[in-house]
Amino acid sequence: MEKLKKYVSVKDEDHFYHQGAVELLIFNFLLILTILTIWLFKNHRFRFLHETGGAMLYGLVMGLILRYVTKSPDVESGTVYECEKLKSGPSTLLINITNQVYEYQYKREISHNVNGHQGSTMLQKMTFDPSIFFNILLPPIIFHAGYSLKKRHFFRNLGSILTYAFLGTAISCIVIGLIMYGFVKAMVHIGQLKQWEFHFTDCLFFGSLMSATDPVTVLAIFHELNVDTDLYTLLFGESVLNDAVAIVLTHSISIYSPKENPNTFDAAAFFQSVGNFLGIFAGSFAMGSSYAVVTALISFMHLTKFTKLCEFPMLETGLFFLLSWSAFLSAEAAGLTGIVAVLFCGVTQAHYTYNNLSPDSKMRTKQLFEFMNFLAENVIFCYMGLALFTFQNHIFNPLFIFGALVAVFVARASNIYPLSFLLNLGRKQKIPRTFQHMMMFSGLRGAIAFALAIRDTDSQPKQMMFTTALLVVFFTVWVFGGGTTPMLTWLQIRVGVDPDEDLQARAASQSAPNLDKNTTKAESAWLFRIWYGFDHKYLKPLLTHAGPPLTSTLPEWCNPIARLLTSPRAYGDQLKDGDTDYIINNDELTENYESSAHIPVPAQDSTASIQATGKEDIQEGDLGLGGYKLQLQHTAGQPQKNSLA
Amino acid sequence: MEKLKKYVSVKDEDHFYHQGAVELLIFNFLLILTILTIWLFKNHRFRFLHETGGAMLYGLVMGLILRYVTKSPDVESGTVYECEKLKSGPSTLLINITNQVYEYQYKREISHNVNGHQGSTMLQKMTFDPSIFFNILLPPIIFHAGYSLKKRHFFRNLGSILTYAFLGTAISCIVIGLIMYGFVKAMVHIGQLKQWEFHFTDCLFFGSLMSATDPVTVLAIFHELNVDTDLYTLLFGESVLNDAVAIVLTHSISIYSPKENPNTFDAAAFFQSVGNFLGIFAGSFAMGSSYAVVTALISFMHLTKFTKLCEFPMLETGLFFLLSWSAFLSAEAAGLTGIVAVLFCGVTQAHYTYNNLSPDSKMRTKQLFEFMNFLAENVIFCYMGLALFTFQNHIFNPLFIFGALVAVFVARASNIYPLSFLLNLGRKQKIPRTFQHMMMFSGLRGAIAFALAIRDTDSQPKQMMFTTALLVVFFTVWVFGGGTTPMLTWLQIRVGVDPDEDLQARAASQSAPNLDKNTTKAESAWLFRIWYGFDHKYLKPLLTHAGPPLTSTLPEWCNPIARLLTSPRAYGDQLKDGDTDYIINNDELTENYESSAHIPVPAQDSTASIQATGKEDIQEGDLGLGGYKLQLQHTAGQPQKNSLA
Repeated sequence: MEKLKKYVSVKDEDHFYHQGAVELLIFNFLLILTILTIWLFKNHRFRFLHETGGAMLYGLVMGLILRYVTKSPDVESGTVYECEKLKSGPSTLLINITNQVYEYQYKREISHNVNGHQGSTMLQKMTFDPSIFFNILLPPIIFHAGYSLKKRHFFRNLGSILTYAFLGTAISCIVIGLIMYGFVKAMVHIGQLKQWEFHFTDCLFFGSLMSATDPVTVLAIFHELNVDTDLYTLLFGESVLNDAVAIVLTHSISIYSPKENPNTFDAAAFFQSVGNFLGIFAGSFAMGSSYAVVTALISFMHLTKFTKLCEFPMLETGLFFLLSWSAFLSAEAAGLTGIVAVLFCGVTQAHYTYNNLSPDSKMRTKQLFEFMNFLAENVIFCYMGLALFTFQNHIFNPLFIFGALVAVFVARASNIYPLSFLLNLGRKQKIPRTFQHMMMFSGLRGAIAFALAIRDTDSQPKQMMFTTALLVVFFTVWVFGGGTTPMLTWLQIRVGVDPDEDLQARAASQSAPNLDKNTTKAESAWLFRIWYGFDHKYLKPLLTHAGPPLTSTLPEWCNPIARLLTSPRAYGDQLKDGDTDYIINNDELTENYESSAHIPVPAQDSTASIQATGKEDIQEGDLGLGGYKLQLQHTAGQPQKNSLA
Repeated sequence: MEKLKKYVSVKDEDHFYHQGAVELLIFNFLLILTILTIWLFKNHRFRFLHETGGAMLYGLVMGLILRYVTKSPDVESGTVYECEKLKSGPSTLLINITNQVYEYQYKREISHNVNGHQGSTMLQKMTFDPSIFFNILLPPIIFHAGYSLKKRHFFRNLGSILTYAFLGTAISCIVIGLIMYGFVKAMVHIGQLKQWEFHFTDCLFFGSLMSATDPVTVLAIFHELNVDTDLYTLLFGESVLNDAVAIVLTHSISIYSPKENPNTFDAAAFFQSVGNFLGIFAGSFAMGSSYAVVTALISFMHLTKFTKLCEFPMLETGLFFLLSWSAFLSAEAAGLTGIVAVLFCGVTQAHYTYNNLSPDSKMRTKQLFEFMNFLAENVIFCYMGLALFTFQNHIFNPLFIFGALVAVFVARASNIYPLSFLLNLGRKQKIPRTFQHMMMFSGLRGAIAFALAIRDTDSQPKQMMFTTALLVVFFTVWVFGGGTTPMLTWLQIRVGVDPDEDLQARAASQSAPNLDKNTTKAESAWLFRIWYGFDHKYLKPLLTHAGPPLTSTLPEWCNPIARLLTSPRAYGDQLKDGDTDYIINNDELTENYESSAHIPVPAQDSTASIQATGKEDIQEGDLGLGGYKLQLQHTAGQPQKNSLA
């Protein structure tokens, strides 16, 4: 009893004082510092350090302080106990200590450097669970990328983006894998590494995780300077899809297990991995889109048969948020890739659900995701900085790190230049040499590479990969991120481009839409014309109140069903929708989204947000791959139509 | 090596598949269900089940399913291992298993019912760390309460609210403690309990945690029906402050440790506890307000000397959010009470910082906190439902539960009726009998009681308290929460009251402001006139751009400092501020806040949010305890002034 009492009182104190509060406070403090710094930089138009770079820097300093100032090693943690009966490490350990059973949870494997001095309790607490990254911090970032995708420009460059994302990432993965295998062989040769530690699959694993580019710094500068829209779209589209590809690739490689010698090539296992890749990608895509379709249907329902959910913007926003997050979680739970699911969920939500939301909810969802993206991104970069000093099992191997830097650079080059050459054979609007150099330069590594590396740090090879990935992220974010503005000047890439004007000018110079002889382009146009027709005729009317009513698009014998599924508001919109003058408002969502985020509004000028609210009411148009000229003429001819919306 | 390989591959699978995703998905699913249900209920104006009650119900059902359907006991967890050398349970355990060191983290003490069948892995995963409640879920709820406090009505009833909150909670705590002590004695008498398990301090501890009322259900219905503003304010104010008092009380009691027999009264220890209570309360109050003052100063700086942070609403919102949360975390880290700190931080932020924010940030912060409050509240209530079946160490003792229900009821009665009687002696505007009955009826228990109980479930008495607290929450939320509307009808309390009209009518009927003979009232008025003068003359000009410039309020020799600290905009506002016609806009924040939350706006009507944005620009007035009539005459006489703002 005496023991119990004492034990309880000790626990009490721990419970009532700052359980986890100090750790969170440190993050808050770092984020506050970062925000104040960004504010200062923005005022002085200083563009050499992006907020993420700043967050990382502060994290680094804080990690250094925590590491060398708070030297309060946990006395107990130094002692290693032996339990004869235990043969393996169970996830939950029940231990009988002086007739009282205590439950312990598995945390990690300590493979080397077990000494009490290195791991102060504080440091241990600052390293949080990788599952927090994957389940809580990453989804808002990826969703935001999908939700704010500039659809019009994206689809115009879809072929190139897909090529860079799929083929390019595969090339990058293989090149990094091969180069690293070479370095590993060299390291074994000079005795730095034992042969068995690194298989070729491990090198490929490293290659796939290092292939996820994250040019958030570059894109922020591009946006601020209004860099050429095509370049922006190519880079943004590539980086968004490339993350998805790299994640699925990493997953596929990690479950590739050849039956015999891991260094030989096993065709069956290889094709199984390829199949896995395709299956996981398609499955995640389907999962993400179906959640978005469900959201669109629910938010559509209130507009029609049922009463209005949009009368309660809080519920609407909540539902939107929860269903989008569920897309991620369901995919993860089903063994698919949540990141891919939430990315396509975001794209689909923007395409369908956004049209059904009440004006208030449109604003709320945009601001909410924007805010969550901002916070999550900075938390991750702060944490990266911290991790350099707080992570306990770093393995710094200079040769491996040097090899990784070389590999990343070579891999990026063998991705961008050959593919750009091939694409230019097919593209009418060539990708200029300067754009290729800029894309080459923008191969920054960031949150996804880090998250993939930290997901598994149980064995020594994985720990070495983690350390190396972290350093590559630091190097690329600071060096390439900081060099973006000088590079733009040096390459003489045009800035200050208005995306809409750009598109208009290009549409005007392009005489006949979709009638070029070029096969690649014609094919993708053909594919998208079919998709566009299907989307416009069936999906949009079914899922939103934009587009023609189903009664006019479905065959006559379907009329009863069509009538049942059509919103009464769609009938009213019939006249408006016949015209195509909404296309110009296609990027309404994205524009407002980003304008509220970045473009400074004069202080105390409440008209800015009023305008934003008012503008959103205009329905987002459908995507069209061709026929810009026609649409633009419509708009120019009947400007009063727009004001009716 | 073979072992390592196998181990890694097993871990890999665990890492890549749904680590934590399923648990989060279950919560998401429950919340989605809850939102859809609320939506249905709101449409049918069904008020017997509030969203929180619904969330709890769904949680309960899900807990039942998880408990009895997922019968997959973890094979390993059933085995209890022995470690001879271990003498106590360290927080981190390093264990050598077949020459590999693994780290395990302390989870809990298993005091009874150790059998493999009861604890499936799923159930274990669903019970999350109490520190998540305290550090992440509770702060937004409490901050939101402070930020949305109807200041005008609150200060008018401040005396009564403070009496109920401080004296009432103390009475409630002691009464529950005494009654429970009686029940415990009885239980010992009939042999259900061993004497040593329950001291009188434990009973007081239980009393203090059960004293935190949470009438969220009742308040939501009050708001929807526009129940009498005084009743609403009394109940809301009491419940907000009462949480703070109960938390500090619980903390003080838990650290009360008499030197000798725990059942005897130790005067020194008692006074130390009282001192602790006062110190912690005052310290937390100071901590919370100073963070808010810092936020106000930072957001004020951009308006004046430095360039504009309000040009970047995202940074402004982020800073506001992080500093408010830091108030909570710093208080916790300093051994104070975060809830109290964040509450007063919210009140102060609304009073000062809100005036400095850009219109966009005003809207963003309101919507953000509203949304977080909504989510956090429903997550907590869902979790309470789940906890009934997923928590592993419940101790159901019918007599103790019955005792607790009786005690809660009696304690509420001995809080409300005697204090109302005393207050009515001093109040000009008496608290009618029906209001007292309604307040008695609204003594629901909720999130805070649960959070305090779950914070410590290490020993058997604490586990019994937790189980009992949980059941009391269920009972009061469903029975009293569901009975609110019938009770309002039965007591014939007036509904459909417009708060502003109500205040005007009352002000008009009140002839001479602050000249009543009543001592209690005069005293508090005197106190508040001093505070009001100080706030209006020095704090408001220093922290916001509302109020007269410091140059006119400070003595002449301070002019250089005053000029340095005064916003250029304040000079411009000088003329306007001389008038008192802003007082009527005092509750601008609260009104807009709640109108956007609850009052349905017609679908597709974007004017509603435009108006809200526009209106915020009007400066929030200062609080005044008297002189309503004068101010109202001003407003009535010069309506054009208001439109200038």
